Amino acid sequence: MKAISDILPSISYGGDYNPEQWGEKVWYEDATLMRKAGVNLVSVGIFSWAVLEREEDRFDFTWLDKVMDILHEHGVGVCLATATASPPAWLSRKYPETLAVDDKGGPYSFGSRQHYSPNSPVYRRAVKKLVTKLAERYKDHPALKMWHINNEYGCHVSECYSSNSLEAFRTWLRRRYQTIDTLNEKWGTNFWSQRYNYFNDITFLNNTPTFPNPGQHLDYKRFMNDSLFELYMVEKKILRDITPDVPVFTNFMLEFKPLNYFSWAPELDVVTWDTYPDPREGTPEAHAMQHDLMRSLKHGQPFFVMEQVTSHVNWRDINVPKKPGEMRLWSYSAIARGSDGIMFFQWRQSRAGAEKFHGAMVPHSNDEQSRTYREVQQLGQELKQLDSLTGAVVPARAAIIFDWENWWAVEMEGKPHNKLSYLEQVKAYYHTFYKRNIAVDFVQPGGDLSSYDLVVAPMLYMVKDGEEKNLEQYVESGGTLLVSFFSGIADENDRIHLGHYPEPLRHILGMHVEEFVPMADGERNQLSAESKRYHCSTWSDVIHLDTAKAAATFDGDWYEGRPAVTMNHYGKGKAVYVGTAPEQTYIDELLAELIKERYLSAPALAPSHVEIVERTSEKGKHLVMVNHNQEIARVDLDPYASYIDLFTGSEVQQETVVGGMDIVILRETEQK
Amino acid sequence: MKAISDILPSISYGGDYNPEQWGEKVWYEDATLMRKAGVNLVSVGIFSWAVLEREEDRFDFTWLDKVMDILHEHGVGVCLATATASPPAWLSRKYPETLAVDDKGGPYSFGSRQHYSPNSPVYRRAVKKLVTKLAERYKDHPALKMWHINNEYGCHVSECYSSNSLEAFRTWLRRRYQTIDTLNEKWGTNFWSQRYNYFNDITFLNNTPTFPNPGQHLDYKRFMNDSLFELYMVEKKILRDITPDVPVFTNFMLEFKPLNYFSWAPELDVVTWDTYPDPREGTPEAHAMQHDLMRSLKHGQPFFVMEQVTSHVNWRDINVPKKPGEMRLWSYSAIARGSDGIMFFQWRQSRAGAEKFHGAMVPHSNDEQSRTYREVQQLGQELKQLDSLTGAVVPARAAIIFDWENWWAVEMEGKPHNKLSYLEQVKAYYHTFYKRNIAVDFVQPGGDLSSYDLVVAPMLYMVKDGEEKNLEQYVESGGTLLVSFFSGIADENDRIHLGHYPEPLRHILGMHVEEFVPMADGERNQLSAESKRYHCSTWSDVIHLDTAKAAATFDGDWYEGRPAVTMNHYGKGKAVYVGTAPEQTYIDELLAELIKERYLSAPALAPSHVEIVERTSEKGKHLVMVNHNQEIARVDLDPYASYIDLFTGSEVQQETVVGGMDIVILRETEQK
Amino acid sequence: MKAISDILPSISYGGDYNPEQWGEKVWYEDATLMRKAGVNLVSVGIFSWAVLEREEDRFDFTWLDKVMDILHEHGVGVCLATATASPPAWLSRKYPETLAVDDKGGPYSFGSRQHYSPNSPVYRRAVKKLVTKLAERYKDHPALKMWHINNEYGCHVSECYSSNSLEAFRTWLRRRYQTIDTLNEKWGTNFWSQRYNYFNDITFLNNTPTFPNPGQHLDYKRFMNDSLFELYMVEKKILRDITPDVPVFTNFMLEFKPLNYFSWAPELDVVTWDTYPDPREGTPEAHAMQHDLMRSLKHGQPFFVMEQVTSHVNWRDINVPKKPGEMRLWSYSAIARGSDGIMFFQWRQSRAGAEKFHGAMVPHSNDEQSRTYREVQQLGQELKQLDSLTGAVVPARAAIIFDWENWWAVEMEGKPHNKLSYLEQVKAYYHTFYKRNIAVDFVQPGGDLSSYDLVVAPMLYMVKDGEEKNLEQYVESGGTLLVSFFSGIADENDRIHLGHYPEPLRHILGMHVEEFVPMADGERNQLSAESKRYHCSTWSDVIHLDTAKAAATFDGDWYEGRPAVTMNHYGKGKAVYVGTAPEQTYIDELLAELIKERYLSAPALAPSHVEIVERTSEKGKHLVMVNHNQEIARVDLDPYASYIDLFTGSEVQQETVVGGMDIVILRETEQK
Repeated sequence: MKAISDILPSISYGGDYNPEQWGEKVWYEDATLMRKAGVNLVSVGIFSWAVLEREEDRFDFTWLDKVMDILHEHGVGVCLATATASPPAWLSRKYPETLAVDDKGGPYSFGSRQHYSPNSPVYRRAVKKLVTKLAERYKDHPALKMWHINNEYGCHVSECYSSNSLEAFRTWLRRRYQTIDTLNEKWGTNFWSQRYNYFNDITFLNNTPTFPNPGQHLDYKRFMNDSLFELYMVEKKILRDITPDVPVFTNFMLEFKPLNYFSWAPELDVVTWDTYPDPREGTPEAHAMQHDLMRSLKHGQPFFVMEQVTSHVNWRDINVPKKPGEMRLWSYSAIARGSDGIMFFQWRQSRAGAEKFHGAMVPHSNDEQSRTYREVQQLGQELKQLDSLTGAVVPARAAIIFDWENWWAVEMEGKPHNKLSYLEQVKAYYHTFYKRNIAVDFVQPGGDLSSYDLVVAPMLYMVKDGEEKNLEQYVESGGTLLVSFFSGIADENDRIHLGHYPEPLRHILGMHVEEFVPMADGERNQLSAESKRYHCSTWSDVIHLDTAKAAATFDGDWYEGRPAVTMNHYGKGKAVYVGTAPEQTYIDELLAELIKERYLSAPALAPSHVEIVERTSEKGKHLVMVNHNQEIARVDLDPYASYIDLFTGSEVQQETVVGGMDIVILRETEQK
Repeated sequence: MKAISDILPSISYGGDYNPEQWGEKVWYEDATLMRKAGVNLVSVGIFSWAVLEREEDRFDFTWLDKVMDILHEHGVGVCLATATASPPAWLSRKYPETLAVDDKGGPYSFGSRQHYSPNSPVYRRAVKKLVTKLAERYKDHPALKMWHINNEYGCHVSECYSSNSLEAFRTWLRRRYQTIDTLNEKWGTNFWSQRYNYFNDITFLNNTPTFPNPGQHLDYKRFMNDSLFELYMVEKKILRDITPDVPVFTNFMLEFKPLNYFSWAPELDVVTWDTYPDPREGTPEAHAMQHDLMRSLKHGQPFFVMEQVTSHVNWRDINVPKKPGEMRLWSYSAIARGSDGIMFFQWRQSRAGAEKFHGAMVPHSNDEQSRTYREVQQLGQELKQLDSLTGAVVPARAAIIFDWENWWAVEMEGKPHNKLSYLEQVKAYYHTFYKRNIAVDFVQPGGDLSSYDLVVAPMLYMVKDGEEKNLEQYVESGGTLLVSFFSGIADENDRIHLGHYPEPLRHILGMHVEEFVPMADGERNQLSAESKRYHCSTWSDVIHLDTAKAAATFDGDWYEGRPAVTMNHYGKGKAVYVGTAPEQTYIDELLAELIKERYLSAPALAPSHVEIVERTSEKGKHLVMVNHNQEIARVDLDPYASYIDLFTGSEVQQETVVGGMDIVILRETEQK
Repeated sequence: MKAISDILPSISYGGDYNPEQWGEKVWYEDATLMRKAGVNLVSVGIFSWAVLEREEDRFDFTWLDKVMDILHEHGVGVCLATATASPPAWLSRKYPETLAVDDKGGPYSFGSRQHYSPNSPVYRRAVKKLVTKLAERYKDHPALKMWHINNEYGCHVSECYSSNSLEAFRTWLRRRYQTIDTLNEKWGTNFWSQRYNYFNDITFLNNTPTFPNPGQHLDYKRFMNDSLFELYMVEKKILRDITPDVPVFTNFMLEFKPLNYFSWAPELDVVTWDTYPDPREGTPEAHAMQHDLMRSLKHGQPFFVMEQVTSHVNWRDINVPKKPGEMRLWSYSAIARGSDGIMFFQWRQSRAGAEKFHGAMVPHSNDEQSRTYREVQQLGQELKQLDSLTGAVVPARAAIIFDWENWWAVEMEGKPHNKLSYLEQVKAYYHTFYKRNIAVDFVQPGGDLSSYDLVVAPMLYMVKDGEEKNLEQYVESGGTLLVSFFSGIADENDRIHLGHYPEPLRHILGMHVEEFVPMADGERNQLSAESKRYHCSTWSDVIHLDTAKAAATFDGDWYEGRPAVTMNHYGKGKAVYVGTAPEQTYIDELLAELIKERYLSAPALAPSHVEIVERTSEKGKHLVMVNHNQEIARVDLDPYASYIDLFTGSEVQQETVVGGMDIVILRETEQK
């Protein structure tokens, strides 16, 4: 298959298009408005099953034929959805077993969306039929650019407790453990009299009187991830068979815990995701982090923003619109961090239904002079100038270890501290890189670390077989590794690595932890480092040094004077351990020192808060600069390079100026 | 049928009487104490089904015969309940299908009350049998004054998800929409693949994975209102047939969202309601508003307070008793606003059961010297002097638009702001009228507005067919209309009125809204009007003027300087739009100006906080004055009129004095 | 049977031992470490059902034989568990009816523990079989010291709504009430149409639309207590038959409302309980109170701490470890108050399962130098010096009335104040005794009060038949009784004692209450006593004096000037009533006066906060002194006595010194 940037050589621009809500006359109006707005790609049919297959085996593609044709005539490509995201009423009524079952044992109701059980054989059979029909019908349509499989898998229903799911769980366990004795050993069922004699003894944990078996609980999360992934693969296989040259994907979500996107990404031709920052939060740093994560899922390959909103959503309690200019600014933040597509939900705001107050590219007023449409049009026209960016990567020499299975495990019940947030710890370290414009990738603990100078592993509670070796080799061969508290505790079945914590990392870190001292909400301790004092909270480790040296010590409580942060030389590298949650200032200073030691730097220098990211391909090296301030910002460039400003076409050297809430994109033309 | 004030020519006074809790000896004691207390009416048998029909078809009326006779002998009339409010254990056991089903799909348990499904045919059949027996037996009993049908419909169970209810819902939908295509169109089912092929495809929304279809959700609320109303009509029909001259009613509740009381009122011979202010809230303004609403349900016809408590309830978390004098004061507040009955729950405080700590007219001590009984007795004696008040109406030239369907719709999920409270917005405008003693009615948006000078429509999100014309004609012919934010948005199926908001009212208001800017809890903006500044919160509209002028503008945020409040001349009238939730001071000043323009005024002038309401009939014009202050208050009267004080019998002119926490009631005797 | 202190003549020391989690090699290591640590007793097999009966009727005792032998060889006694606390997977799968059913009607899931229904005949049959097998096998094993029946009955599942439980409930009701008419009378079912015709009409109250019948609700609590107790008795009977000389018990819990431990205690040979103070709360006063309660359950007989933790639990949100020295200190607090055993959960920290982060005597590191093991070892060695303490009682001349049935009743719904906490009221009065080192027992309202000078009855809402007489006789014959607000209101069926509150106690107290005035959260009033002023909150009574005198009056609100606290002489005694919840200072001063009047005193005098408790037996009179301060404390001793310090062996007279966070235990050797 060709690279996505060959199939879609410009920045893709458009949105979800649900024409079945409107009559044919509106379709022509839509296509004309799309062209005016610079739209070149729309996602069609995401919720169209009920109007494509009106009763079992009664298909009706005539309306979609027409829509595809109109779009193609107007130069708009189609990312065609497989329409399986919400099965129709007749399926639920005829086959109630297709309904997912909630943790109280009741089936979900028809009447919103995503009510299907991923493990229903009948649902899977119906999916296969529909996808096959669609692929056969449109395989040669010239508008077809990509396949949009299902939609936001697991968004509302990521757990199912149906009897079909139970059968599938037992099968999944048999495949994973082979024998029931192995399962018993891995789950530690000898505690609390939980031993199983047969795989068929195993039931769901949805209504246990108290804390369930952690091994089983963790495996249920794995199983549900795999169930939804299998469902994706059912569709992918059909599409690949019938249209081998058309890229396929599904769309991911923000900070979505139930699905291990690292395990999905190899089977997506392009990673896409839906970004909905709450404007009340100001600059969406969490979304910037997610852009970096999404880019990392396929090792740097550009991703797509498959959904965002022009103005406001309607599913929060209080849905504030983006202020003038914010939609544009945040779109470029995505592009800076590796996005080759800027898509919206949805094209035209609904008249009825659950999302009628969700913003769209064309508002209820249908007014071309509306702020919304004018902003859409401006951005669409600008993006046409950025073809050279597509396919370009973001070079990074730092990485943060991220692992969904660790996320599941560390936030399960029965821990020393049961309000720990894995993401909060990750974000604390990400923040330093983000603020300093140091490009950072995300990588799994067993992933390839060889290209990084600095790797941070926040709260890596679970260390699985082989990951210990991977981290060891990284440090041994010269890498700098920072590990934070409550790391190296459990194996892949959430069983303790017996010995002194963190047993598998102890030799790399040169220290061990005797006791954990969780802190209550609002409780604080202090640490001293080089005669400076900092707050810390959440957690303290009672640390013993082996070969490491203390870099900071605790100032209070009964473990006063003991090490809080340690540094150890191991092989050619260096391993730092942070045995608490220090205030952000300390993290910034500690990481800044490591960044400096490893000669990492921003692509250009600017006052805060200007995002500057480098994107590079054979088409050139670009600097994307997004000024989140109200005031203009002066940026110092590489003095040995010359650039061209992609918007103005003018040549730039030494420095440039980015207007308040504005964007500059430079392509390097020469390096002296 | 005769007017209620002909059947009950004095203010009715008494309470719920549940004699089955006590032996016959106590019944005689009760009747004697009632006479002493001035009681002339009691509601008997509300929860007596189990002792009237002891097993299926085994009826026992002997005890009730006795009770009726004793009461009659003591001069106490009976408001006889149909006893259907809580079916007996044998019915639940023999016919489990009579149990209502909750939103988790489980049947309610027997053991408290109101566990029946309104759509159970078996329950309805049993109801018919019991009501027929009761009516036949007591139709000629001289004590019988009124029929009390069931009790507080929907109080605990206003939703039912049984299979009987589902069948009934489908039938209801068939009747409403005729064809499934119409239903699909009205519900907008083409979004999210929700199209139905048959009415029998439709199921309940009780367990949808996310936001349900809004049209269906709204219709379910209509359906449940109608289900309970049909149940009421089943009983009414029987009673009307057998006792055509005996008035019937059921008792309503405070701010009760599930039932559209406007749709019920035409079938009640008198509106009655149960008022339970929390003494911790001080003067019960919300209950005053409810009195005005109850009076408006039958277009000004006097209503009854069917339940209140002498002292304290027992169903709040913390149940504070009314202070000495408060029960009396608040009773007169009800009378002032149109009540012809002051009734209590209950006569004698229970020894056992769920309400044994709920206050009563006779406390556990059975002590005639108790504060409770003394206050009861005092009020009972006073009311005997007020016969001329019964049947009198409260003349009002201002009205607030109120619509239960709008309430349902605007507070459903998926809105721009999902913490909006319709009642809160209504109350903000009611407050000004209340504080200034300007009489105000409530009226539906399609109701007759011709008698009002000033009409306020707070947050009228839903504008149904014809309502737009009704409001237009009102303004065109000279009325003053005030409309507040988030009005004119949706039709009766909660589908957007496409175009610029508020499309159906835009021409009347002379402006349109481009964007909504909901504000977070605690967030505020400011508005300026005539060089004064006010806070506003909750919501801002981004407004464009068509023909209107700005009366106030926003002072902050990105829409600074744009109109916040607008005024438009339309026909002979005037239309004001308030595009935010201003602080109370601004609302008070704005409304005061409109009140002044339309020459509305209080019936007499007094310092705050003296309630003064006019009640007028052919028996005369009365001023009811309730002084909520601790201090005495001087009231300036119409200088051209003479009055008689109904309590003292003395003549009054020019001015009068109302003692602290005291009441004066004047009847006009002469107008010069 | 011999006294426990004859069977176990030293302080018992050890913990739960779950060897099935580890291999045989570890068992030998365990036994060696136990001996080093001074362990002399372990509880084995609490969760071993699945490995003892591997499938129905397939028993395997070989591993347990080995464990018992090893322990015995190392001088460690065994408290053998009956292993019924968590039935195995095969039982749940083969007999789903053994699963308890929750209040939504769904069965609990297998996969944690305690998922059984206490009323399942199949579960009971399986229990009998297992317990018989165990008893037969180990009845003559020399290691066997005691039987540990089940574990923490009701901890997670204290309510069951299965059809088996419903059948059992009906049977229980038949036994209690004989006729349905009696039941109707006692439950007051004539209110709300709740009359039952047959016992089989009765269903559970788990899903009533609103407040359930209080009599039925209360009886359900009694029934569930009795169901679990019957289960205990099933096991006890078997064990007593087979091993008549081996003591049996089950372990109780802190402030555990569902089980009326007073009703259980006569059938336990020793009371044991599990104490888990949260170190964040500082000195565990609530646990001290519970020690006193546990000692009182068998009228002063020493109890055992059957579980505590060395350091931290893992089932709180945030699990802080005990600081160095706290485990030791709190262990001696238990010993001071009557404990003859200090046991832990568990011996060796789990590698897997739900409690792997729960502290243990041997931590994950298996390090003998760990703080945890060192503290365990120190305490174990110390306890060997305290043999003379075992069997000794704590003499007390004051008592607090405590009644589980009152607890259930007063905190049920529908009260004047529905946030009342019975324990909070009890603790307020306990606090004074605790702080002043005045020994205090707990006693039921119908219990023997003859040995007490001072009895406090906080919030004794329920006064059952005969209890009134018991209290009357106590005061009449010279006792001092303090009763606090909302006492004497209801009978054993939660029906009002008609008349003036508190009807059954009115004559003793010489006053009555006309009205209750509950206060909102944060609301306060004031009371004046002897020209001093105090805050009070939660509740005020409007009191009329009969023969009593006011000892304090309210200073505010509409009942200002009325009595708040009253004193009455009755017979030879005195009865005090406190009609509000005063601030702690007032309670302390009021009780101090009564303590002084009755010449009660601490066993020795020390600055706060040194706990000093006397324990006495034929082996001598001991003073156990636990210094909770950081600073050393000087203690003034009885000048006429001589003592020996049990730890140092030195003679002590006049005074002694207790180090900061340290303990001194003296035995009196001579009294001049």
